[in-house]
Amino acid sequence: MMIGSFFKGKVRKTMFITLEGVEGSGKTTVAQAIMAVLKGRGYDVLYTREPGGNKIAEQIREVILDTTNTDMDGRTEALLYAAARRQHLVDVIAPALSKGQVVLCDRFIDSSIAYQGYARGIGALEVEEINDFAIAGMRPDLTIFIDVKPEIGLKRISQDQFREINRLDLEQLTFHQSVYDGYLALARKHPQRIQVIAGEQPVDGVVADVTKLIEARLQHAAATE
Amino acid sequence: MMIGSFFKGKVRKTMFITLEGVEGSGKTTVAQAIMAVLKGRGYDVLYTREPGGNKIAEQIREVILDTTNTDMDGRTEALLYAAARRQHLVDVIAPALSKGQVVLCDRFIDSSIAYQGYARGIGALEVEEINDFAIAGMRPDLTIFIDVKPEIGLKRISQDQFREINRLDLEQLTFHQSVYDGYLALARKHPQRIQVIAGEQPVDGVVADVTKLIEARLQHAAATE
Repeated sequence: MMIGSFFKGKVRKTMFITLEGVEGSGKTTVAQAIMAVLKGRGYDVLYTREPGGNKIAEQIREVILDTTNTDMDGRTEALLYAAARRQHLVDVIAPALSKGQVVLCDRFIDSSIAYQGYARGIGALEVEEINDFAIAGMRPDLTIFIDVKPEIGLKRISQDQFREINRLDLEQLTFHQSVYDGYLALARKHPQRIQVIAGEQPVDGVVADVTKLIEARLQHAAATE
Repeated sequence: MMIGSFFKGKVRKTMFITLEGVEGSGKTTVAQAIMAVLKGRGYDVLYTREPGGNKIAEQIREVILDTTNTDMDGRTEALLYAAARRQHLVDVIAPALSKGQVVLCDRFIDSSIAYQGYARGIGALEVEEINDFAIAGMRPDLTIFIDVKPEIGLKRISQDQFREINRLDLEQLTFHQSVYDGYLALARKHPQRIQVIAGEQPVDGVVADVTKLIEARLQHAAATE
């Protein structure tokens, strides 16, 4: 069968996929489920998120998430995220893609544009520019925005006792609402790259929707190679 | 007397001055001497350099200068310098200027353009763009390039036992030659802002030249206020 050959055969299309959403949108849970499904179907998939075990990016991340750094300027934060992103891209994502793996990355450039560009009011275009410098042309092939409203996401977080609350969680709901609006604006701006998935349905449904989407893209990519 | 009134009177023009040069060009020694002269003449001057006692910028600096981070990507480094610069500008330089002080800053945007843009080959224009994001319009009024060739600068460093050797010092001479060439290109590009001072003469001569230049600019600024 035509489709089966893509799962078992030698036709492999490397693909760079990113996951986006507000705090508590369930990205990590969904990612784990998708990974299990895709691996079960024979894909060589790497799941990663910044800083991704990268020593330099880890050090940068510590500076950003230090809860005592409450006076950090918004532009400083945006530049630090771009720096950590660069190192993670060079050390983790690019080598995986060149080995032919499918890379699933939890948060990438759109997080910076939504959080710093829109919500902190620095400007979406300016934040996109410094991120273009960081990624140097390596844009995701597909970005999945898990659509969960911020009030739902924050409620989920407050019920999870095992997750540490970091500095970003402490921001007001209005901030997270701006992040959410920023994501929707980005999805309208890049309708081909960014796909919006209903995220408030039961997690099985989210996983099914995302898996279907990724498989369709992988098959299409393999077919047009 | 006309000129005396600028030193003793109420006419104060705030001015943002930066010092640039290769490793071992004697920037710090020259800066201390200039500070003493200008203070003696009644100017309210602040000497600073990145990270400038700023906690966040200090944390970023530690990541950059960590001698074990030999695999740091050039773009990561450029973004980190821009981030530390931003925080130092917001917390130290901008408040001093708004209080009416003259600010003398040891290294600023031109260091990044010369080191990362030219010497690391990332591209002068691209590095200038991320630094424009960092400074958001706050360019120096005057930049002094202390012209000491890299082979002279590195020889001076190796003779100073009290100065710790950091990662940048370990780079090859060819790297520092590119930095030097980058500075000269910048000086040609911005002939009004960047002034080249002969730095291989005895230090008294360098201090005299720089002091004369700064005073002329301060007086001109006060006169045209």
